[in-house]
Amino acid sequence: MPNPHFSVLISEVGPRDGLQSVHATMSTAHKLAWIDALHASGLREIEVGSFVPAKLLPQMADVAEVVRHALALPGWTVMALVPNLRGAEAALQAGVHKLTIPVSASAAHSLANVRKTREEMVAEVARIVALRNATAPGVLVEVGMSTAFGCTLQGLVADEDVVWLAAALVRAGVDEVGLSDTTGMANPAQVRRLFHKVRAEIGDKTGAAHMHNTRGLGLANCLAAYDAGVRTFDASLGGLGGCPYAPGASGNVVTEDLVFMFEAMGIATGIDIDTLFKARAPLQAGLPGEPIYGMVPEAGLPKGFLNV
Amino acid sequence: MPNPHFSVLISEVGPRDGLQSVHATMSTAHKLAWIDALHASGLREIEVGSFVPAKLLPQMADVAEVVRHALALPGWTVMALVPNLRGAEAALQAGVHKLTIPVSASAAHSLANVRKTREEMVAEVARIVALRNATAPGVLVEVGMSTAFGCTLQGLVADEDVVWLAAALVRAGVDEVGLSDTTGMANPAQVRRLFHKVRAEIGDKTGAAHMHNTRGLGLANCLAAYDAGVRTFDASLGGLGGCPYAPGASGNVVTEDLVFMFEAMGIATGIDIDTLFKARAPLQAGLPGEPIYGMVPEAGLPKGFLNV
Repeated sequence: MPNPHFSVLISEVGPRDGLQSVHATMSTAHKLAWIDALHASGLREIEVGSFVPAKLLPQMADVAEVVRHALALPGWTVMALVPNLRGAEAALQAGVHKLTIPVSASAAHSLANVRKTREEMVAEVARIVALRNATAPGVLVEVGMSTAFGCTLQGLVADEDVVWLAAALVRAGVDEVGLSDTTGMANPAQVRRLFHKVRAEIGDKTGAAHMHNTRGLGLANCLAAYDAGVRTFDASLGGLGGCPYAPGASGNVVTEDLVFMFEAMGIATGIDIDTLFKARAPLQAGLPGEPIYGMVPEAGLPKGFLNV
Repeated sequence: MPNPHFSVLISEVGPRDGLQSVHATMSTAHKLAWIDALHASGLREIEVGSFVPAKLLPQMADVAEVVRHALALPGWTVMALVPNLRGAEAALQAGVHKLTIPVSASAAHSLANVRKTREEMVAEVARIVALRNATAPGVLVEVGMSTAFGCTLQGLVADEDVVWLAAALVRAGVDEVGLSDTTGMANPAQVRRLFHKVRAEIGDKTGAAHMHNTRGLGLANCLAAYDAGVRTFDASLGGLGGCPYAPGASGNVVTEDLVFMFEAMGIATGIDIDTLFKARAPLQAGLPGEPIYGMVPEAGLPKGFLNV
């Protein structure tokens, strides 16, 4: 989306992607305190939860209350993940600003994950768009295309599949299609190439880069996406979530490190890093014992560093 | 240096930078086994030790024997660090292929570290070059310019200081000047800018990028350096060394992760990753209990990945 005040938009996904990836369930009170701390840092977009059946993901049972709280905070876009039409109905009823729908680029992953083909998912997205158009035309609909850079089931995912799916989703009426490195398989050359190809196909409907740090390339891939014209980046405070494969291997790109990289480069995020660091405390208070990551919080800001 | 067979040259610095940064001293037998394992992976350049007084760095007391062993292995450049003329005499006597001399871009760091001004260090480098010219004209002399991207003592280091020092070193006769992010303060925009400026001044005498992962930007900075035309990259197996500031914060860029990034991008390193992973075992055997890093070794290679 156009983002006139900042050079890049950091979209915090921790309260959704992070919290649904851990075994423990954060209490509602702790979630609200964490979200308040995230808001205070200057974040302008946040994914606060998933509208899924509570018996499948008990961590998200309070999502409507969390959305209500986040909506009361000014100046940011409150987003929720919805896997299907039923989830979208609930999310729109809760009043979110933006829906995000995961759709797999990998045929094998789509069937294994949601027991639907990619074509069936495009049809489901079209139904969600129709509902949005009829009941809440101001709400944005984004697709996060998972396994866009590779799949643990089928291995390589062809660029053509990604471009074809992006075009089909735009025809189905979505406002943005982002690309997700669900499995931590992306490399910077591929990131540049694939975002260029997708932009050539769907233009300004090209959305966020959602990169994982599974193999240490998270920030390099974000840099590559920036070079390819991407201006919205998903990240998770403390690197929470993102399905790490191994102990010590973080999944999602760490928000703190990503913000540091851009600010150090002179690319404004609108986020105050010191205040962002302070949002780690309520996260840790709400998930005692859960490991969190972040190289910059550990090493500290360099001498002479100024937030732009 | 020209590198006709590979797209990039990975220069392994673990046996020098890594081993002199840890408290324990690796036995000579373990060093030799580790160096054999590194050689087997296809590495074509290695920094095997420092020629410094054994009472200052007992870890390096056996450096002449280590050099002798490394020189017996075919097809790679054996390099040693020398802080001054006396070290260079010993290294040349041992028969190294290449000398590397650290010179600080930061005036404050130079005085604090070696009690010499930068101008005095340039004069020392000129004496080393004269010795090389007189006694071993086939040996290469490289300077690794430390604190080129910032200094924990003085904070920012001006680009002009780096360019001035690079030019002075080339006038003193060195073959290559690399830039080192000693303190983990570099960002990708700065890396691109500074390597472009240095190349504009000293052309093909622009040497390696020596990046640290202190704040998680190691690989992003290597990518930026590659974009700026750099083709030689220092790295350390397991991320050993590089003065980490905090527990869990690695210092040097991890060789395994760097090789993975380039190979995944289709940029040939000449290194077999699986064999490189196997060099972690002798490192750990020789330094029991010392933490080593590496996201790719932890997560494994992605499904469908092929070494180029």
